[in-house]
Amino acid sequence: MTAPFRLGIAGLGTVGAGVVRIVQTHGAALAEKAGRPVEITAVSARNRGLERGVDLSAYAWEDDATRLAHRDDVDCVVEVIGGSDGPAKALVEKALAPGEHGAKHVVTANKALIAHHGQELAEAAEAAGVALRFEAGVAGGIPVLKGIGEGLAANAISRVFGVLNGTCNYILSEMEASGSDYRDVLADAQRLGYAEADPSLDVGGIDAAHKLAILAALAFGTRIDFGGVVIEGIERITLADIRTARDMGFSIKLLGLARMHDTGLEQRVRPCMVPEKTPIGALQGVTNAVVAEGDFVGKCIFTGPGAGAGPTASAILADVLDAARGVVSPAFGRPAAGLTAAPRLQHGAEHSPYYLRFMLADRPGALASIASALGAAGVSIHRMRQYGKGDPVPVVIETHDARRDAIDAAVDAIAALPVSMEPPVAIRIEEV
Amino acid sequence: MTAPFRLGIAGLGTVGAGVVRIVQTHGAALAEKAGRPVEITAVSARNRGLERGVDLSAYAWEDDATRLAHRDDVDCVVEVIGGSDGPAKALVEKALAPGEHGAKHVVTANKALIAHHGQELAEAAEAAGVALRFEAGVAGGIPVLKGIGEGLAANAISRVFGVLNGTCNYILSEMEASGSDYRDVLADAQRLGYAEADPSLDVGGIDAAHKLAILAALAFGTRIDFGGVVIEGIERITLADIRTARDMGFSIKLLGLARMHDTGLEQRVRPCMVPEKTPIGALQGVTNAVVAEGDFVGKCIFTGPGAGAGPTASAILADVLDAARGVVSPAFGRPAAGLTAAPRLQHGAEHSPYYLRFMLADRPGALASIASALGAAGVSIHRMRQYGKGDPVPVVIETHDARRDAIDAAVDAIAALPVSMEPPVAIRIEEV
Repeated sequence: MTAPFRLGIAGLGTVGAGVVRIVQTHGAALAEKAGRPVEITAVSARNRGLERGVDLSAYAWEDDATRLAHRDDVDCVVEVIGGSDGPAKALVEKALAPGEHGAKHVVTANKALIAHHGQELAEAAEAAGVALRFEAGVAGGIPVLKGIGEGLAANAISRVFGVLNGTCNYILSEMEASGSDYRDVLADAQRLGYAEADPSLDVGGIDAAHKLAILAALAFGTRIDFGGVVIEGIERITLADIRTARDMGFSIKLLGLARMHDTGLEQRVRPCMVPEKTPIGALQGVTNAVVAEGDFVGKCIFTGPGAGAGPTASAILADVLDAARGVVSPAFGRPAAGLTAAPRLQHGAEHSPYYLRFMLADRPGALASIASALGAAGVSIHRMRQYGKGDPVPVVIETHDARRDAIDAAVDAIAALPVSMEPPVAIRIEEV
Repeated sequence: MTAPFRLGIAGLGTVGAGVVRIVQTHGAALAEKAGRPVEITAVSARNRGLERGVDLSAYAWEDDATRLAHRDDVDCVVEVIGGSDGPAKALVEKALAPGEHGAKHVVTANKALIAHHGQELAEAAEAAGVALRFEAGVAGGIPVLKGIGEGLAANAISRVFGVLNGTCNYILSEMEASGSDYRDVLADAQRLGYAEADPSLDVGGIDAAHKLAILAALAFGTRIDFGGVVIEGIERITLADIRTARDMGFSIKLLGLARMHDTGLEQRVRPCMVPEKTPIGALQGVTNAVVAEGDFVGKCIFTGPGAGAGPTASAILADVLDAARGVVSPAFGRPAAGLTAAPRLQHGAEHSPYYLRFMLADRPGALASIASALGAAGVSIHRMRQYGKGDPVPVVIETHDARRDAIDAAVDAIAALPVSMEPPVAIRIEEV
């Protein structure tokens, strides 16, 4: 095993340049750990002329990324182009296909690609006897796929959840800390580079949903089912909700959560109330955290940098080192053919306590009409509070454990009442 | 790879029985993940007649644990006897030795054995081409050796630290929560099974030091050096210190910390003050947490159950699954011959802010004599507070960053003053 392990890097944005930088900085240590030299032989990007802050002169250049899959001097393709389809998918499919040049190992940071096409790609990698790894796609630099897929492999996992999108966590914790409104904090985040010019993938919950679908497949041994993730973003969270949450001892977090029930797999990305004095509730800024609950181990939490060039490149090279050492395990921890298609949990069957906020006309009987609508839907009240004396006046309710469909029914009924002046807000209270 | 991977288990206490239970409960899933069946063929313990709550009738019995190393139907010895020498060491050495029956893989939870003999054992395993793994020895069920050794392998680690002993953390957080004294909480911990009848390995810091030495070797690529760990336990921590700490925004934690300096490797287990609103400061009860700082990834935190049958067995089986899949990497992540013997950091050269507590006679000039002794030693004061009006009266000082030897000199000088009525306390304030 002294032959070098040769990388072809597709995509030279900040992450691709980060991979180059680690290989150039830590070459000797990487060789020691891999048991063989780790080298870059070829790179590809759209614009050859761009200055990227790293010296690429020793590497072959390919204008067409898929050509990396045809090079005999590449053992492993590192895909950091991004996107669920298009050139990234074409390259990865080519690399995993046996053919004249042999299949290549693939290491990617592309969560969208895996969330949409993980099953077929995992099957292709297994058939070809090569590794397909995507640690960098979930929770950035935190070795959470390794931690759950290998470190907790002896457990039946019952629940996996976490704060999977740093942009959303930055916005929510900044709103809480600074008292600024959603729009202002989002603009700040864009200025600081924490949010994209088009932030919809992040704040809409799609990015977190990609990661959650991957975590669920790995944790439960199920076929990846991105379409089964119920998604709600943070766009509707107001400063008022954040303040009320705090007042009740909660923080609002965008949680991705997957849980295996007897009747199906629950997967959702939604803003949740979590107790503020917990590792998840206390999580500030762009940090990510993932919690896995196993039947023998109990609860493990993995916390760290969820994005950025250094952390993402760190995760990519961890996968590269495994492949270089000859570790070729199935992409989702078990043979792809054995991954089961879990039924989706019937929508509405999931249950928990809920936080409800109503904006009510300040008139006699308003509270009573709310309470009776909740009662009619079978939702019982844990505590109820009216904030101030405005018109409309905010009324906040913490319910006891209730099914989501009962909450939805109650909320719909209340929204239709004449005393309800704005659309009600319902936020799940999650035990973390 | 469809031949079964056959385990011989040495030691059938709660952890050994936990390993049996996982294999019996999750056999099908383990086989799927390992790519081959994982079976127990033989077991050994001192007392065959003991009821252990698991059915051992299908396994061969060995009265002498070292006989497991001679069995042709054992591929991997699981050592959960414990102890740095004696039967555990004899068994592991036999198992790793090539011979008539071939070397066996070894998976152990024995931190003392690895802390004292890790280098020789790692060399023996490599020479024989078998795995030597000890995830269960550090931080129980948390996959932290895998996380740091593999998941963060692309980084130069600058610092690794954490709460490595659940018994101590239970005692300290209970003292803080209940306001009970050290002796009372220790007695409770013993009643609850969180502390041994002889608690000295735990509260004296030895157990945490074993784990720290292993973490340091893995993180820095150095030869394990248990003798180089500076150790101080929690026996001298008083309720007064805990209350003052809280008053100043700190929690007292027994931290194991290793840091690579230009001039040598610092390794210490010592009570430290840490900001209470950090993941380490907020850690309650028997939970462990390990923090690693890498040059590319930044800071990752691994939190979870640090002890107990289920978590420890979970970690053992993670190692077993790797070995069953054919993963045979060097025990400390790089070839044992290449591990460097780092010089020990000169004692006293480490620096940080400190918390100092003095019990002073209530007489004019007492404070001034303290302040001038600190000044003479080159230690400058960040804030100073006198608690109440007793005699002796507690005086608490938070210093600016100072070298340990300067603090020691100042404390010695002050202890010798006539106004000093009790031995002073110095606790390092750690940035976590």
